[in-house]
Amino acid sequence: MDERLKKQLEFALEIDKEKNIFRQTHLSGHGRRENDAEHAWHMAIMAYLLREYANEAVDITRVMLMCLIHDIVEIEAGDTYAYDTDAQKSQKAREDAAKENLYSLLPEDQKQELIALFDEFEAFQTPEAKFAHAMDNLQPLLLNNSNGGGDWKEHQVTAEQVYGRQVKTRLGSERLFEVTDAIIQENIRKGVL
Amino acid sequence: MDERLKKQLEFALEIDKEKNIFRQTHLSGHGRRENDAEHAWHMAIMAYLLREYANEAVDITRVMLMCLIHDIVEIEAGDTYAYDTDAQKSQKAREDAAKENLYSLLPEDQKQELIALFDEFEAFQTPEAKFAHAMDNLQPLLLNNSNGGGDWKEHQVTAEQVYGRQVKTRLGSERLFEVTDAIIQENIRKGVL
Repeated sequence: MDERLKKQLEFALEIDKEKNIFRQTHLSGHGRRENDAEHAWHMAIMAYLLREYANEAVDITRVMLMCLIHDIVEIEAGDTYAYDTDAQKSQKAREDAAKENLYSLLPEDQKQELIALFDEFEAFQTPEAKFAHAMDNLQPLLLNNSNGGGDWKEHQVTAEQVYGRQVKTRLGSERLFEVTDAIIQENIRKGVL
Repeated sequence: MDERLKKQLEFALEIDKEKNIFRQTHLSGHGRRENDAEHAWHMAIMAYLLREYANEAVDITRVMLMCLIHDIVEIEAGDTYAYDTDAQKSQKAREDAAKENLYSLLPEDQKQELIALFDEFEAFQTPEAKFAHAMDNLQPLLLNNSNGGGDWKEHQVTAEQVYGRQVKTRLGSERLFEVTDAIIQENIRKGVL
């Protein structure tokens, strides 16, 4: 087998490990915790189906790819909970090291392409990155809301903290932020937040 | 919230259940069984990275979407193991009913679009469907091979059965079928198949 294909298949096998990185969000129906691969799959489909609500026109292929790969670094860096401020301080350094290690398994051109895509997602500047982030926020919000806000209760998250993160959905989609806002307000009324 | 967005979000929440549909394939590192959402995520990334090996030029966005949605019907129809000939007899009827139920949650235009995409995948005729099927075969083969062929041993699958399924990878990618063939031959030599 030539070196290029061999590297591609090694990377394909390596990313299988993302299925073992568990998040704080629980599956609907009061299920178990969700893992990164499931989260990414869900986000990519949601991005496609909800693309009409993006504030700016997006290249949906690039959005879907961003959704699919945005957590691969967590295979080495681990998941950082959105409301864990201590872990967030070291998050970038951990993820940068993981990014170099993991994507180096690929042929050079694909390594550079996927790192650029990941960096674009992290930089939060392009329409695609903003919309992918809106999915990264909305997807766990839907699950958590369907479970009566159990993930927020478990971590004693405040409404202020939730807004601090979820307000960024507005940068990707004003329309989907209206949904987000309504869900948060409902949970405040119920005393969950 | 308007009816269209409400339906889209209901569908988004419904497909969360795909994460509870477990396959016969085990994760690498002799892990637990894989679920459909993880499998679909893995296939979509592999399709993107390996698209240069497709026999015919493919619209990669459509291939990725097919990969992402191809197992949604299993939320209602259940997973049918590739080498379970009894279950395969009723598979189409079960999946057709599920397809109508599940995609009807979406607005009509998106229902029709996703059903057409699923039907195209099942029909195995277009370059996109053939390449997506190549991923559907190659992805579990890589995992199973990394585990010493444990899934084949567990189900006492024969080399003939494996070839019967995997030979179809050739329709999507001659180059990736060479990899498949090498893996099967190696497992025959080792006495696994």
